[in-house]
Amino acid sequence: MAMEKTVEELARLLGAQAEGNLQHRLIDVAQLEAASLTDLSFVESERNSAEAFASRAGCLIAPAGVELPGKTVIRVQNPRYAMALAIEIFHPQPLLKPGIHATAQIGDNVLIGEDVSVAAFAVIENACRIGARTRIGASCTLGERSELGEDCLLHPRVTLYAGSQIGARVILHSGAVIGSDGFGYAREAGKYHKFPQIGWVELGDDVEIGANTTIDRGALGATRIARGTKIDNLVQVGHNVQIGANCAIASQAGISGSVVIGDNVVIAGQVGIGDHARIEDGVVLGGQCGILPHKIVKAGEPSGEPMWGTPARPLREHLKQQALLARLAKKHKDRES
Amino acid sequence: MAMEKTVEELARLLGAQAEGNLQHRLIDVAQLEAASLTDLSFVESERNSAEAFASRAGCLIAPAGVELPGKTVIRVQNPRYAMALAIEIFHPQPLLKPGIHATAQIGDNVLIGEDVSVAAFAVIENACRIGARTRIGASCTLGERSELGEDCLLHPRVTLYAGSQIGARVILHSGAVIGSDGFGYAREAGKYHKFPQIGWVELGDDVEIGANTTIDRGALGATRIARGTKIDNLVQVGHNVQIGANCAIASQAGISGSVVIGDNVVIAGQVGIGDHARIEDGVVLGGQCGILPHKIVKAGEPSGEPMWGTPARPLREHLKQQALLARLAKKHKDRES
Amino acid sequence: MAMEKTVEELARLLGAQAEGNLQHRLIDVAQLEAASLTDLSFVESERNSAEAFASRAGCLIAPAGVELPGKTVIRVQNPRYAMALAIEIFHPQPLLKPGIHATAQIGDNVLIGEDVSVAAFAVIENACRIGARTRIGASCTLGERSELGEDCLLHPRVTLYAGSQIGARVILHSGAVIGSDGFGYAREAGKYHKFPQIGWVELGDDVEIGANTTIDRGALGATRIARGTKIDNLVQVGHNVQIGANCAIASQAGISGSVVIGDNVVIAGQVGIGDHARIEDGVVLGGQCGILPHKIVKAGEPSGEPMWGTPARPLREHLKQQALLARLAKKHKDRES
Repeated sequence: MAMEKTVEELARLLGAQAEGNLQHRLIDVAQLEAASLTDLSFVESERNSAEAFASRAGCLIAPAGVELPGKTVIRVQNPRYAMALAIEIFHPQPLLKPGIHATAQIGDNVLIGEDVSVAAFAVIENACRIGARTRIGASCTLGERSELGEDCLLHPRVTLYAGSQIGARVILHSGAVIGSDGFGYAREAGKYHKFPQIGWVELGDDVEIGANTTIDRGALGATRIARGTKIDNLVQVGHNVQIGANCAIASQAGISGSVVIGDNVVIAGQVGIGDHARIEDGVVLGGQCGILPHKIVKAGEPSGEPMWGTPARPLREHLKQQALLARLAKKHKDRES
Repeated sequence: MAMEKTVEELARLLGAQAEGNLQHRLIDVAQLEAASLTDLSFVESERNSAEAFASRAGCLIAPAGVELPGKTVIRVQNPRYAMALAIEIFHPQPLLKPGIHATAQIGDNVLIGEDVSVAAFAVIENACRIGARTRIGASCTLGERSELGEDCLLHPRVTLYAGSQIGARVILHSGAVIGSDGFGYAREAGKYHKFPQIGWVELGDDVEIGANTTIDRGALGATRIARGTKIDNLVQVGHNVQIGANCAIASQAGISGSVVIGDNVVIAGQVGIGDHARIEDGVVLGGQCGILPHKIVKAGEPSGEPMWGTPARPLREHLKQQALLARLAKKHKDRES
Repeated sequence: MAMEKTVEELARLLGAQAEGNLQHRLIDVAQLEAASLTDLSFVESERNSAEAFASRAGCLIAPAGVELPGKTVIRVQNPRYAMALAIEIFHPQPLLKPGIHATAQIGDNVLIGEDVSVAAFAVIENACRIGARTRIGASCTLGERSELGEDCLLHPRVTLYAGSQIGARVILHSGAVIGSDGFGYAREAGKYHKFPQIGWVELGDDVEIGANTTIDRGALGATRIARGTKIDNLVQVGHNVQIGANCAIASQAGISGSVVIGDNVVIAGQVGIGDHARIEDGVVLGGQCGILPHKIVKAGEPSGEPMWGTPARPLREHLKQQALLARLAKKHKDRES
C-alpha cells in the first residue's frame, strides 16, 4: 500500500529543503526507535536529538537548528505537521467503494449524495440527508432527519439520535453517541419526572469525536460544537453546552449542562466542568482539574498558565500550596519525633 | 408535529391560573432567549426574572412572587415540572408502529407482549420476555432469559447480558451495557484467575440509564437499582452494588463493587466511591469527590451539606481548608520576598 | 443447569481436605447471606467469620485457622481461587453451537479456525484470521486484517479497527473499541491537522477488556497490552501505551499516550496518568490519583504503599497532609470564634 519517494521528491511535496543524500529512496514512515533505512521519521525539537541521531531512519524531518551531522534531513518549521503530511503521502486513505450495502435499511425521503458508502447493517431513518462521499460504517444508526455534510467518516457502531446536524469532513469514532437525552428532570412529590429533551446537536465542519464519547442534545435548542474542535474518547458533553472552534478536549473530560467554552481552549483528561460555567478563549485546563458550577475562567490569569486542582487555580499557585503542605506536614512530624 | 393551544387551554391542562392575554395562541416551547411570540417558556425563580422580562415568549410559566408586569403568565408552584408537562403536550412522543422488523432475530420461547416494536438488526435470545408496548431500538441485543416490563424504551445499540431483569417504563440509552461481568479475579501463582460472574442485574420501574453507561452483573446474586433512580451517561456501576429509589447519579461517576446506596441520594459528576462503602439516604456527593472503601457516609453531617474533595468532607470544611492553604502559601511567599 | 456434588467429591476436585458432613449434597453456589442448605459459599478471612457462622450454607470454603465449629468446611490456602474453581464446576460455561450465522458478513480471504461461532449481524472484513473455538457475538465488527487467537470470547457489539492483533483466550466485553485513532494532531495556522494514526493494537493471551473501554491504536507502531492483564469498564488507553503482564486496571482509569506500565501493576478506579509517564513493576495507584506527564513512579517508595492524590504521593504522606490541614483549619476557626 505504501509508495516509494526519493528524499528530494518528498521535500518538494512538503515545500521544504533537504540536506544529505537527496536520491535516497523512502518507502514508509516509522518512529525514531523502530525506523529502518527505507523509513522516514521525525524530530520535534532539540530534546529528542540524541534519539534522532541514534535512529536508523533513512531520512529525518527536523526543525532548523537541530544539528544532525551525517544525516539526511528535510528541514521544516513545524515537523509534526510536515510528518502528518508525509504520512498522508505514504499511506493514502484506502478508497471505499461507494455504494449502499444490500443489508442497510434506508427510510423514506432520504437524500444521499454522490459516491456515498453505507456499510452492512446500517439503519438510516426517514428524511435523513447525507453529503457526497460520506462513509457510514457497519451497524451505524441515523435517527430521523439527521443531516451529515460531505466527506464525513462514521466508523462502525455510531448512533445519531433524531435531528442531529453534522457538518462536512466530520469524523465520528466507533461507539460515539450523538444526541442522547440530557440529564434533565423536574423533582415533584419526591420523584424525578423526565423533562423532555426535545433539542438537537450541531457539530461544525472538521470536528472529530472519539470512541464511546457521548454528546447530549439540548433540552430546548441545540448543543453546539464549532468547527475544527477535536474531542477524544469517553468524553461527556451535557445538554445545551456550547463549545467554540479549534478546541482540544482530552479523554474522560466531563462537561456539564449549559457550559459555554470559547475558541482555542485546551482541556486535559478527566477534567470536570460544573453546569453553567464559562471557559473563555484560550484557557488551558490541566488534567483532573475541577471547575465549579457558574464559575467564569479567563485566560491569562495571571500569566497564561494552565489551571490545576479542584477548585481549579493557576498551576504554579497549586504546586506552591501542595509543596507548602508537604513541608508543614514534615516539620510537624519532625517536631513530634 | 406541535399543536396549537390558547393560554387558557394550557393553564387548564396544567391545573393552574393564568394572567394576561388568555386567548393568546401558543404553538411551541422554547428557551427564554430563543422564544418568539407563539412560544411558551418558563422562569424558575426570581434569579432569571430579568431574562424573562426581556424574552419575546408569548407566555411564561412562573412561580408566584416573580413579578412580570405586562406579560402573559401561567402561575404554578413547580415551574420546571409544569414546563415538563407542557412540553409533553406540545411534543407528544411519536407513536412507533408496533411490529417486529423482518431482519430482527428472535430466539425460541420468547414471550412478546402486545404492541411491542422491535427494530432492525435486534437480537432477542431464547426465553426472553418483553412487556406490552415496549420499544426495542436497532441493533439491540437481549441475552437469554432477559425480561423487560411494559412501556420500556431501548434506544439503538443497547446490550442486555443474559438474565437481566428490567422493570416497567425503563429507558435505556444508546450504548448502555447492562449485566457485563464484574471485575472479579482470584490472584493465584502471580496470575489473575477469573472469578466467574454468574449473577444478574435488576432495574426497578421508571429507571433511566444514560448512553454508554455500564452496569455489571453480580458475581453471585444481583446488582440492583431501585425504582425511579436516574443514571447519566458513562457511569460505572460495579458488581453487587445496591442503589435505592429516586437517586440521581450524574455522568462519569464510578461506583465500585458491593457499594450500598440509600434512597434519594444525589451523586454529582465524576464522583468515585470505593468498594463496600455505604451512602445513606439523602446524602449529596459533590463533583469529583472520592469516598474511601468501606466508608459510611451519613446525611446531614453536620448540616445537610454536600460532601466534597478526596477523601470527601462537608463542603464548607473543604472550602475552608482550601482557603487557609491558599492564605498560608501567600503569606509564606510574602515573607520570602 | 447446575450439577450435584457431595462435599467429598468437591473437596477432591479442589485438591483439598474437608471437615464435617462429607456426604452432604451441594447443588449450587451463593453468597454467605443468601445461601441455603444445598449451597456452597466461602469465607475469605477471619474478618467475615461471624457472617460465615450465621450463614445457612451447606458447606463453606475457608482458609486454615478460621474456626467454624459445627460447620462443614473445605479447607484451602486461597479461598477466593478455590471458590472460582467451584463455580466453574457448578456452572460450566454453556457451549455455543459452532457455526456462522446466516446474516453474518464475511469478507474475502478470511481464515476461520475449527468450531468458531459467529453470531448474527457480525461483520468480518477481508483478510481476518480467527482462531479455533473463538466466539464472536452479535453485531461485532472486525476491521481488515484483524487476528484473533484461539478460544477468545467477544461479547456483542465489540469493534476491532483494522489490523488488531489479539492473542488466545482474550475476553472483550460489549461496547469495547479496540484500535480507534489516538488523539494526535499537528497544530498549524491555528487549526488542528490530523496526525494520521496508522499503528495498531496488540493484546496478549488471557487479556480481558471491560465494557465500553477504548484502546487506541499506535500513531506509528503498536499499543501493547501484555498477557494476563485485566482491564475494567470505561477505561481509556491512549496511543502507543505499553502495559506489562498481569496488571489490573479498574474502571474509568485514563492512561495517556506513550505511557509505559510494568508488570503486576494495580491501578484503581478513575486514576489519571499523564503522557509519557513510566509506572514501574508492582506499583499500586490508589483511586482517583493523578500522575503528571513524564513522571517515573517506582514501587516500594518508601514502603510498598499505594500512591494517592494529585500529584500522587505515598498514601500515608497524603493522609497526614490532609489531617494536618484539617487540624490547622479547625484551630484557625477556634481562634476566630
